[in-house]
Amino acid sequence: MAHAHDKVTDLRRLLMAGPDLALSEVDPRSTPGFDGGKKKGKAALEAGADALSSLQEKLFAESRAGSEISVLLVLQGMDTSGKGGVVRHVVGLVDPQGVQHHAFKAPTEEERSHNFLWRIRRQLPKAGMIGVFDRSHYEDVLIHRVRGLSPAEEIEKRYAAIRTFEAKVVASGTRVLKVMLHISKDEQKDRLAERLDRKDKFWKYNPGDVDERGYWEQYQEAYDVAIARTSTPDTPWFVVPADRKWYARLAVQQLLTATLEDMQLSWPRADFDVEAEKARLAAT
Amino acid sequence: MAHAHDKVTDLRRLLMAGPDLALSEVDPRSTPGFDGGKKKGKAALEAGADALSSLQEKLFAESRAGSEISVLLVLQGMDTSGKGGVVRHVVGLVDPQGVQHHAFKAPTEEERSHNFLWRIRRQLPKAGMIGVFDRSHYEDVLIHRVRGLSPAEEIEKRYAAIRTFEAKVVASGTRVLKVMLHISKDEQKDRLAERLDRKDKFWKYNPGDVDERGYWEQYQEAYDVAIARTSTPDTPWFVVPADRKWYARLAVQQLLTATLEDMQLSWPRADFDVEAEKARLAAT
Repeated sequence: MAHAHDKVTDLRRLLMAGPDLALSEVDPRSTPGFDGGKKKGKAALEAGADALSSLQEKLFAESRAGSEISVLLVLQGMDTSGKGGVVRHVVGLVDPQGVQHHAFKAPTEEERSHNFLWRIRRQLPKAGMIGVFDRSHYEDVLIHRVRGLSPAEEIEKRYAAIRTFEAKVVASGTRVLKVMLHISKDEQKDRLAERLDRKDKFWKYNPGDVDERGYWEQYQEAYDVAIARTSTPDTPWFVVPADRKWYARLAVQQLLTATLEDMQLSWPRADFDVEAEKARLAAT
Repeated sequence: MAHAHDKVTDLRRLLMAGPDLALSEVDPRSTPGFDGGKKKGKAALEAGADALSSLQEKLFAESRAGSEISVLLVLQGMDTSGKGGVVRHVVGLVDPQGVQHHAFKAPTEEERSHNFLWRIRRQLPKAGMIGVFDRSHYEDVLIHRVRGLSPAEEIEKRYAAIRTFEAKVVASGTRVLKVMLHISKDEQKDRLAERLDRKDKFWKYNPGDVDERGYWEQYQEAYDVAIARTSTPDTPWFVVPADRKWYARLAVQQLLTATLEDMQLSWPRADFDVEAEKARLAAT
């Protein structure tokens, strides 16, 4: 999976959400497209680092030569699903100069006074960058649906608004990779318990997370609907089984690599006379 | 150098710019405080990664518990001095979620319409973050002095303005680490030549860099003056010999680690009843 291009294509086919996706039918402990275990998975992640890093540098280099293209990785998932781990262990493999990371929290008063996409637009990746959203505009159709933070009619409108918005983002030159990290309710329990067991993890624990567990099924359903309503040929959703952290990281790395490979990036040609510059430099 | 705290202290003493610093007296090929070669240096960099990463996470965690503290790494140096490599290989070792990187380019029209510190203030690190400036407000006393972009009286005023500004930044809870990567004119020539020899490096080459080489001595003098005029007990300059990339990276890693160690960071205490939360979680 880490090298051969046909296998990466397979992985995308394996993980892309179909029109009738039901999360309940996706096993969070499965490892589609990869038959090794944790050790091999970690080795594959490491083996794939250089390819991803080189692609990122090309993307960045092209922007210096005037290209407007960029990439946006949208990470969604229940609490403890491993979004932060993906940022640390996948995005962390590339040059920090080429990464624009933003974690969306509960909106501020100013943000709430605008359309829900207002704060999203402001964080879109600049030319040559890999943008990473840890949570996103999807919260506005997920928690808002589950907890009734907005009227149902408003939420209905948002699916279409998101499709239109993302189509514009793609048209402007940004590839959008949407990933839902899919964990089981039991796995979440274990991960929350770990945060309560370790003093260096207390800061990650929020009592509200336990309250949200009471709405688990509703969240799964809200994801099913959001994924079905906002998957398009240009902006499909990928559902990544995430009970095994090593698999989720490897899968996102491969999806991101495949996204960049599709862009057919190349090193910009010199916009100066190389031989003349060599002579000028030699004279200094 | 990579582990013992007294050695780190030594390194700071060794690299801190004194009031009478003259770059011409610092050998860019030297490796103060480290008697190994490239191989050992790279191993030491790797060995120091976990310590830096753990300190960064504590800094971030403290901000979640309400702390306002942060760190700002200011990187200056001639073209090709390795600022980007430090970002890639030192800053790149920590979680991208905790890094706020900004490369300052020639100011835009809007930026030029404001005081030179206006655009700097907007990029200061938020609570819990490690901010990294690739170039900075120092360009306004370096290239401006060398190329006469501002009147001499104005540049004189800027040294004091910078001292005042940085003192306020420190008072607000941000530790400032200022690093000048010191390369030789010959080493720069080799590095520029490499950019002209490799198709994957053309994009990093700028014909203007050769023109700037004609002002090498003036830049060295401008650095001497800027460092002397803006070094204070709270915001000293460190001059890092940088002809050997491995040494420069190791040295900056150690300086950054020492800066974070000084902050006496600790994991935030739980602001909830741990046992009660365990019981609540178990019941879900």
